[in-house]
Amino acid sequence: MPQISNKGNQMPASPIRKLVPFAEGAKSKGRKVYHLNIGQPDIKTPKVALDAIRNLKEEVIEYSHSAGNESYRRKLADYYKNIGIDVDYTEILITTGGSEALLFVFQSTLNPGDEVIIPEPFYANYNAFATMAGIKLVPVTAKIEDGFALPPIEKFNELINEKTKGIIVCNPSNPTGYLYSKEELVQLAEIAKKHDLYIYSDEVYREFCYDGHTHFSAMNLGIEQNVILIDSVSKRYSSCGTRIGAIVTKNCEVLTTALKFAQARLSPPSLGQIAGEASLDTPKEYFEEVYAEYIERRNFTVNALNKIEGVVCPMPKGAFYTIVRLPVDNSEKFCKWILSDFEYNNQTVMMAPANGFYSTPGLGLDEVRIAYVLKIEDLEKAMVVLEKALLAYPGRTL
Amino acid sequence: MPQISNKGNQMPASPIRKLVPFAEGAKSKGRKVYHLNIGQPDIKTPKVALDAIRNLKEEVIEYSHSAGNESYRRKLADYYKNIGIDVDYTEILITTGGSEALLFVFQSTLNPGDEVIIPEPFYANYNAFATMAGIKLVPVTAKIEDGFALPPIEKFNELINEKTKGIIVCNPSNPTGYLYSKEELVQLAEIAKKHDLYIYSDEVYREFCYDGHTHFSAMNLGIEQNVILIDSVSKRYSSCGTRIGAIVTKNCEVLTTALKFAQARLSPPSLGQIAGEASLDTPKEYFEEVYAEYIERRNFTVNALNKIEGVVCPMPKGAFYTIVRLPVDNSEKFCKWILSDFEYNNQTVMMAPANGFYSTPGLGLDEVRIAYVLKIEDLEKAMVVLEKALLAYPGRTL
Repeated sequence: MPQISNKGNQMPASPIRKLVPFAEGAKSKGRKVYHLNIGQPDIKTPKVALDAIRNLKEEVIEYSHSAGNESYRRKLADYYKNIGIDVDYTEILITTGGSEALLFVFQSTLNPGDEVIIPEPFYANYNAFATMAGIKLVPVTAKIEDGFALPPIEKFNELINEKTKGIIVCNPSNPTGYLYSKEELVQLAEIAKKHDLYIYSDEVYREFCYDGHTHFSAMNLGIEQNVILIDSVSKRYSSCGTRIGAIVTKNCEVLTTALKFAQARLSPPSLGQIAGEASLDTPKEYFEEVYAEYIERRNFTVNALNKIEGVVCPMPKGAFYTIVRLPVDNSEKFCKWILSDFEYNNQTVMMAPANGFYSTPGLGLDEVRIAYVLKIEDLEKAMVVLEKALLAYPGRTL
Repeated sequence: MPQISNKGNQMPASPIRKLVPFAEGAKSKGRKVYHLNIGQPDIKTPKVALDAIRNLKEEVIEYSHSAGNESYRRKLADYYKNIGIDVDYTEILITTGGSEALLFVFQSTLNPGDEVIIPEPFYANYNAFATMAGIKLVPVTAKIEDGFALPPIEKFNELINEKTKGIIVCNPSNPTGYLYSKEELVQLAEIAKKHDLYIYSDEVYREFCYDGHTHFSAMNLGIEQNVILIDSVSKRYSSCGTRIGAIVTKNCEVLTTALKFAQARLSPPSLGQIAGEASLDTPKEYFEEVYAEYIERRNFTVNALNKIEGVVCPMPKGAFYTIVRLPVDNSEKFCKWILSDFEYNNQTVMMAPANGFYSTPGLGLDEVRIAYVLKIEDLEKAMVVLEKALLAYPGRTL
C-alpha cells in the first residue's frame, strides 16, 4: 500500500472536532449533546443575507474573480472605512473562510523552518496551517491567573532570532476571550518594526468587545507594510457555513502573491459571496440584539462556572470563548468520558480539551475551551450537566 | 519590508486567469470579450439545485461536518453506485471544489521532493498544487499529432525511480479532451501495482464523453488501495461557483489523513453542499440536452478552427476543451495582443496560452487551450474574431 506523507502524519487532528465520533456515539444513544466545543452560534444569520440567497437571480452559479466579486470587495472596503480602517478594495482578497486566508498568508510569506511568535493558548487550527506551511509556532505563554493578558514584552524579545518572521495576534482572542489594548499592540508593533516582522492579525471577533472596551485594529498601528489582517463573515454574521473570509493588507506584494494561490483554487464560493455582500447591509439593531445576548450568555456562563467547586474561569472581554480550569486529571480524558460514559437526564456536553490550544507540551491539561454560543436555557442545562459530571468523574482531582 | 516566501515566488500564475487584467482592459474600452479561456460554461445550473438554494430553510448558515453533510455523502455514494463505482459514504470526503481535493490529496500522500508522473499537456493548476506541496510533476509528453493519446507505456516506465510516488490522470482530459480507454488505464494500473504508486484520477468531466465512447473509472481498476478519485460538481452541473468537490477512495488511511486537513478548514461551503445534494436529482433530460449542446459546440468549434489557415485542432472525445495549434510565434504574446491591441467589430477573444499546461520548457508555445463553453452564436463570432486576428497578428508565422 502506498504511503502517507510526513506532513499528513504530523497534521494535528482538530481539538475542536476530534471528539466528534464520541459526540456521535452519545447522540446514537439518544442523548442530547450541548455543543460548547465549537464557535457555532445558534444566533440567526441576518435576514438580509438569507433573503439574498433565497432571491438568487443567477441561472448559472459561476466562478467569480479569484480575488472575489469586485462589488463585494468595494462594499467591504466601505465597511472597513466605517470602522476606521482605511483600505481600498484592491487591498482585499476574498477567501474561503478565514481558514484559507491563514493558509494563503502563511504560504505567501513564510518559508519552511521559519518561526512565528504567538501568545498561547491560541486558536488550535493555527497549528494545522503552520504544519501545512512547514513553519514553527513559538509560543509565549499567557496565564489564566492574569486573565490571559499579553505576556510581558520581554518574553517576545527573548524569542526573536534570525528565523523569526512574524507575530500572530488574535484580537479579541479565540480561545481566551482576551481583548488586547492599543498599548499592548503598540508594544508588539515596535518589535515588528525593529525586526521587520509581519503581524498576522486575526480580527474575526472584532465586533464582540464587551464592558465598554473598544477594538483597536492592527491595521492602524502605523506599520502598514508589516500588517496582514485576517477576517471572516463567520462570527460577525453568525454565518459560519458561508465560508467567506478575507485577507486585507496594504502590502501589495503579499496580496499579489496570495492571489496566485487564490487563482489555483479558481474562486471563493459564489453563493457565500452573495450572502457576505448582503450581510454588509445588516441593520444596527441586529448587532445590538446579538451583543446583548452574548453579554447575558457570557455573564451567566462565567458565573455558573466559577460557582462550581474547583473551577476557575476568567471574565472574557471579547469573542465568545473562555478557557476554563477544571478539577480533573486530564481534560481530554474528561471530555471523552463525559461524552461516552456520562449522562445527566439523558444529556451531556461537548467541550474542546485545551491542550490542543497550547504548543508548550504539558500545558492546558486541566483546561477546556468553552464556547458560550448557545441560548441561555441550553447553557443552564449544560452547566448543570458539567457540574454533575465533575462530581462523578473518576479522575476528579479535588 | 518583510519578505515573500520562496514558495510564494515560485507559485505559477494561472495561465487560465493571468491574462484577466488584459481582458478587463478590453472590456473597459467597451469591447465584448468572448471567454474561451476558462471552463465556465454558460449552460444553466439545474433547476433543482437553484430551487434548493431559493427554498433555503435554514435560519442559521452553520458549519457542516468537516467531511461534508452525511446526507449529501450518502446520496453521492448512491450516484457512484449507479454509475458502477461501488463506494460507501464513509469513503467520500466533500471538499471545497476539486481544487481543495487535489491540495488535500497531494499533501496527505506526498513528501517534498516526491515525483508524480503526468501526461502533458495537463490541467495547469496541478502545477500550483504541486508547488504548494513541494512535489515535482514529471511529464510524459502527449502529442497533438496523436490526438493527445496516452504516450507509449515505456515512456512512463523510463521515468520511474525511487522518488516516484504516483501518476495523475485526468479523464476525460482537461485540456486536451482526450478520453483514456480502459486498455490505456489498465496499462497504468499495472505500473502502479508493480511500483506501489498512487493513481490520482481526476474524473470531473466523466459525464462528457462523446461519439459513443464510455467512461471507465480508475476506481474499477482492481487496485483500490492505490486509487484516489478527485471529483467536482462544477462541470457536471454547470455549477462552478458552488465550490463543491470530493475525494473518493477505498484507502481509509488516505481519507483519515485528508480529514485532518479538512478539519483545519472546518467545513466545505454549506450553501454549496445544499446545491450539490439537490443536483443529484437532476433529471436525465437535463444531461441529454447539455450533451447535445456540447456535441454541437464541439463539432462547430473544431471544424471552424481547422478551416482557418495554419490551425490544427484534434477532435476531442470528451470534456469541453481542446488544445489548438496556431500559426503564431508565441501564443502567450498572441493571447495578450488579441486582448489589448486587436478588435473586430468591437469584439475580441480570451484564450489560455498552452505553455502553462506543459511542464517541459519550450512546449506549447504555439498552442492555446480553447474551452467551447459558449453558445453557438458566440462561438461563431469568436471564431471569426480569431480568424481575423490571426491574419492581422504581427507575429504570424505563415
